[in-house]
Amino acid sequence: MSGKLLITGSVAYDNIETPLDKTERALGGSASYAALAASFFAPVCMASIVGSDFAESDIARLRKRGINLDSLIRDASRPTFFWRGKYHDNFSSRETLEVQLNVFEHYSPKLSDSAKDADIVLLGNISPGVQSAVLSEVAGSPFVILDTMDLWINTARDELKKLIKKADILILNESEAKMLSGDRNIIVSGERLLDMGASSVIIKTGEYGAMLFHRDGFFVVPAYPVKDLRDPTGAGDSFAGAIAGYIASCPSRSFATIKRAMLAGAATASITVESFSCLKLEESGLDEISRRTGLIIKYSSI
Amino acid sequence: MSGKLLITGSVAYDNIETPLDKTERALGGSASYAALAASFFAPVCMASIVGSDFAESDIARLRKRGINLDSLIRDASRPTFFWRGKYHDNFSSRETLEVQLNVFEHYSPKLSDSAKDADIVLLGNISPGVQSAVLSEVAGSPFVILDTMDLWINTARDELKKLIKKADILILNESEAKMLSGDRNIIVSGERLLDMGASSVIIKTGEYGAMLFHRDGFFVVPAYPVKDLRDPTGAGDSFAGAIAGYIASCPSRSFATIKRAMLAGAATASITVESFSCLKLEESGLDEISRRTGLIIKYSSI
Repeated sequence: MSGKLLITGSVAYDNIETPLDKTERALGGSASYAALAASFFAPVCMASIVGSDFAESDIARLRKRGINLDSLIRDASRPTFFWRGKYHDNFSSRETLEVQLNVFEHYSPKLSDSAKDADIVLLGNISPGVQSAVLSEVAGSPFVILDTMDLWINTARDELKKLIKKADILILNESEAKMLSGDRNIIVSGERLLDMGASSVIIKTGEYGAMLFHRDGFFVVPAYPVKDLRDPTGAGDSFAGAIAGYIASCPSRSFATIKRAMLAGAATASITVESFSCLKLEESGLDEISRRTGLIIKYSSI
Repeated sequence: MSGKLLITGSVAYDNIETPLDKTERALGGSASYAALAASFFAPVCMASIVGSDFAESDIARLRKRGINLDSLIRDASRPTFFWRGKYHDNFSSRETLEVQLNVFEHYSPKLSDSAKDADIVLLGNISPGVQSAVLSEVAGSPFVILDTMDLWINTARDELKKLIKKADILILNESEAKMLSGDRNIIVSGERLLDMGASSVIIKTGEYGAMLFHRDGFFVVPAYPVKDLRDPTGAGDSFAGAIAGYIASCPSRSFATIKRAMLAGAATASITVESFSCLKLEESGLDEISRRTGLIIKYSSI
């Protein structure tokens, strides 16, 4: 059987400055990137909230990819979540200059019947409080993919730890894994995160790829070799979204399936970073993702 | 046919301090690590120089691994090359506190007839001047593996560039590749280094692994997952040495051979870093290297 996929997280407007260029009020947020990425693999329901300023044209962009927005609330009294950030030193560091939670300060998830029936849920990067609220609305015992970031490790660790116990896949980057595990070796960190209750753990290593720690084994996927990096924003969300979509399209959720999902994730994330915002991602397709997936396999095969 | 392997580089005494421990006057140097690593795969001739203080017991350690030392000169008038360094921040950075070239200030290579006949030469990390001097003593047109480091890129770039044109494999780490290529993207760097005349380029990415840029394709090998890192000194030299030894043991020097050699290199380097100095490396064997090579293949296979 393949699964019904629900994705939550932020829908945002981003002001982004890179060493090469800048853009304002670009469609962003973890749920946007993740849902677009997932949409190439499986039907997606998105649960999130936008504000008074959210453009119909951006709704249309999500709908164009077939994303079900029945659980996307519009709060006409406040603006959409806003993030402003800057990349330094040839993209090696990112600085968050401004975050306005706006509509997320009062978000109370309302899921459509279809979303409630999801059997795969991607809790995209947003506060553990919001992630828990969405997950508690889902009936049954879905397969849970949990993405997070350093902010929540620092400000909501206890809530996050409770969610980790429910996670079939926990996704975080290397520095976050080390921060949360309390160990500075990446391999030991992965094993400690398994001990915290996640059924499997994916540690992202940026331009190097990602590692999977799973009870059935260990796996390393290299990144697709990107020569023309434009904007890393949303790379992790696209990676998680493609993983969720790939798994939703598969009859199994085994170690082998998660490994193949990571290849799809790496391929999809590499498309995202080659343009500002989600411009290249939303115009991509399974052909290009499959081409890059095939190359990643080729590049790591002896 | 398999090849006769000559390895040059430094033979040194190292004082090493890590976050966990420290050691003094440990056997080190690029040629020592590389020759020990290569010795598991093929017979090795070593060309280098030691000083008045070099212990017979250290000569015995190299001989025990079958390394031919007919081209290892002893200069009784000066001490052995000496390096003192310290690892900071959980091994994420290394500081060189002291370098005494000592015997290398006056090294004039004298190769045995057997060493002159080498058809594979590993120019281990030492000044391009010494590397050139050794290479010029070799008859014929050997397969050249060239290792280097940031110091030589900064102080002897022109000499290094001449050597690169003769290199069948150029090996350097990520920051060195970016420094030498003038580009800050790792993929673009690898391609530019090919343009500089190397037939193939291996960029080491430390705990993530290494990438191969070759006219026949691109390849990524992940690192072996090391949980108990003790001393990274010599990891790169062991990697290069195992690659050289593996290639010397093979009838071909094709893309496929270099890929397999990198697996052997990654496996061997992972053994080196699990102890101070070359203690664990010299007591290892092909069984353990093959076991780790097999695991690296498994960990990167779908």
